[in-house]
Amino acid sequence: MSELKGACIIGQSGGPTSVINTSVLGAIETALDCPSITRVLGAAHGIRGVLDDQLLDIDKEDREELKLLRYTPSSALGSCRYKLADPDVDDTDYKRILEIFKKYDVRYFFYNGGNDSMDTCNKISKFMMKSGYDCRVMGIPKTIDNDLFGTDHCPGYASASKYIATSCMEIYQDARVYDTGMVCVVEIMGRHAGWLTAAAGLATAQGAGPDLIYLPETDFDMDKFMADVKKVYAEKGNCLVAVSEGIHYADGTFVSEAKTSATDGFGHAQLGGLAAMLADKIKSELGVKVRGIELSLLQRCAAHCASKTDVDESYMSGKAAVENAVAGKTDYMPGFKCTRDENGYKCEIELLPLSQVANTEKKVPREWINAEGNGVTQAFIDYAMPLIAGDNVGPKENGLPRFAKLKKIKAEA
Amino acid sequence: MSELKGACIIGQSGGPTSVINTSVLGAIETALDCPSITRVLGAAHGIRGVLDDQLLDIDKEDREELKLLRYTPSSALGSCRYKLADPDVDDTDYKRILEIFKKYDVRYFFYNGGNDSMDTCNKISKFMMKSGYDCRVMGIPKTIDNDLFGTDHCPGYASASKYIATSCMEIYQDARVYDTGMVCVVEIMGRHAGWLTAAAGLATAQGAGPDLIYLPETDFDMDKFMADVKKVYAEKGNCLVAVSEGIHYADGTFVSEAKTSATDGFGHAQLGGLAAMLADKIKSELGVKVRGIELSLLQRCAAHCASKTDVDESYMSGKAAVENAVAGKTDYMPGFKCTRDENGYKCEIELLPLSQVANTEKKVPREWINAEGNGVTQAFIDYAMPLIAGDNVGPKENGLPRFAKLKKIKAEA
Repeated sequence: MSELKGACIIGQSGGPTSVINTSVLGAIETALDCPSITRVLGAAHGIRGVLDDQLLDIDKEDREELKLLRYTPSSALGSCRYKLADPDVDDTDYKRILEIFKKYDVRYFFYNGGNDSMDTCNKISKFMMKSGYDCRVMGIPKTIDNDLFGTDHCPGYASASKYIATSCMEIYQDARVYDTGMVCVVEIMGRHAGWLTAAAGLATAQGAGPDLIYLPETDFDMDKFMADVKKVYAEKGNCLVAVSEGIHYADGTFVSEAKTSATDGFGHAQLGGLAAMLADKIKSELGVKVRGIELSLLQRCAAHCASKTDVDESYMSGKAAVENAVAGKTDYMPGFKCTRDENGYKCEIELLPLSQVANTEKKVPREWINAEGNGVTQAFIDYAMPLIAGDNVGPKENGLPRFAKLKKIKAEA
Repeated sequence: MSELKGACIIGQSGGPTSVINTSVLGAIETALDCPSITRVLGAAHGIRGVLDDQLLDIDKEDREELKLLRYTPSSALGSCRYKLADPDVDDTDYKRILEIFKKYDVRYFFYNGGNDSMDTCNKISKFMMKSGYDCRVMGIPKTIDNDLFGTDHCPGYASASKYIATSCMEIYQDARVYDTGMVCVVEIMGRHAGWLTAAAGLATAQGAGPDLIYLPETDFDMDKFMADVKKVYAEKGNCLVAVSEGIHYADGTFVSEAKTSATDGFGHAQLGGLAAMLADKIKSELGVKVRGIELSLLQRCAAHCASKTDVDESYMSGKAAVENAVAGKTDYMPGFKCTRDENGYKCEIELLPLSQVANTEKKVPREWINAEGNGVTQAFIDYAMPLIAGDNVGPKENGLPRFAKLKKIKAEA
């Protein structure tokens, strides 16, 4: 494969995570030090920044300040939830993207996101090939949802899991402090896949976590749920419950559906308010003290509780995308291939074709959920435990985190 | 003052904090090493444990395990929200307490809690004096609410503040990530005093915090609030708002009041759901994307984000209670007297009479709130900033906190 010289664009898309900036840092630092890459551009708000010709001049950022991206949550370049049309139906956006690529002599495109973003990346990749424009396109995975197909796990998942498990351990201590009992329901993100909610089971494995865990991989039955809660409360005098926002009845209706009819930019129903709703129901039926807690945005932005393993792997992922592209690969996403055995945990990069990862959701295997559908098995714990190892301790200023402050200078062609 | 020999009881009461166990550890370790104290007993669930003769044999706990209380949130001995009657009206409980004190030869009583608990402590102290039973009674302050009178601040406040400010900084990063704007409302604890919500201003002082902050110390005006939000959103394209759960209209009605009519054991209205309610209102009136986040229990139990300063001071507070009691003092609570000047921050113990601290709420001074009533001033920042300094890093096990596991052996007389 001959050397391809030109600029690169790095963009972020979809919901942010605690470590998506670390993936971008891995890509940026590798690109800045790479002779084939003549210029490093950031897309302001993902593909929208490309379409709107809003590119950031990363070469003008201070290298030391960039390093703080390792401790800075959310998407430093800005994100979007813009869905590209099917190019066979409407190729307006794709032509515009090609125009911008040509304008800045962009020969490398790195897109950092989840399912929908890998779809965007895949479509752009295929369009560039079809157009005969020589450009190497690589996805860089991120999603707290952990639902990307083909990879052992996704950057961002472990840090969210560590926060969820830590918070559940702390809530467990708090929610059973009184002589009078309480049922506490914690609502965790995850529309269709229960990976995040399952992570609450890591707290249970430490002896201080939810008594009951409900994932969207199994159908929810309200009567069984109430009976489960009643049984645990009768035995222990307290009950801590973790539910995924996406739990649904057998007919597919979300349990939370009555609460809101808003949708996000991709047409997904915006869920929420489920914990409060279930807590109210428990209170009225069982007559016990209740509390509903929604972890909300905190679970995806709590960089102060990030997993060192996750941070290191996220960096490796961004770095691998750039290195492989420069070495001639295109149309891939660096995934993780992991081993967990008597020698411990090991994680290696494995390139996955974009078309394979785009739009395919990976769910928690049924056998990692207990028979009753109200907890996780040891197999899940063995899978997730190594991912949350280590703390990612960043610099502090006045007792608070010191986040990266980028100049974000608009690039000129 | 002659030496007083006998057992001590240490109890915890009211809502727990991240560091209330550190205060108890300070008291326990000092008591265990003190020749005048013949036996260290823990009250299971505060004064209820005394009334029910449910005392724990702290002498039988492992000293190394006890040390983990420094990293363990919530009240390890158990808490209660039991209000003692006015002894002039009904002295049944007091007579029972005296009976238990005599049964175990209790000569020292340490009660760790907030306003209501200091009231309990004060009443017991006065009853013992009146009864001529020689027993030294000391309160040990704790409350994330920071509303105890006479002390510069309260153990527990700083750690909750550090969590609130850190989380607000993280939410700030996350809630402005998209090209489309958002208004995010964060609901923070504090019924009558706005100390905790004010702490969100520490994030703002770091350049990444709420644009608007509303405390219960000023009357809330919904029209002014909507105008404030609209103005910030128009200027910045995003708006982060922090509100105290206790914000109220000029007539005293809680803004959240319509949401719930439940009350806790002390007859206080149980608040909540305010963030979602305000977010909904903003959405319907301004037509913008919104999110309501309630920090809920997390803010008082997030030991993983505790302030080292708070932890050290909490320990000092428990230690001071025991040392002063053994030295002959009774009927006091060790408060903090602090200086903040060119030599930095200094905190010393100052004994405060129990009758003075009981049931008097300290509020945020009006001059620490800006003229518009939607933010805090530099004077507040100068006050709070030193309190959140330092991280309290505890041992981990499988990537998660290792909390103290006490044996909790029931004491026999």
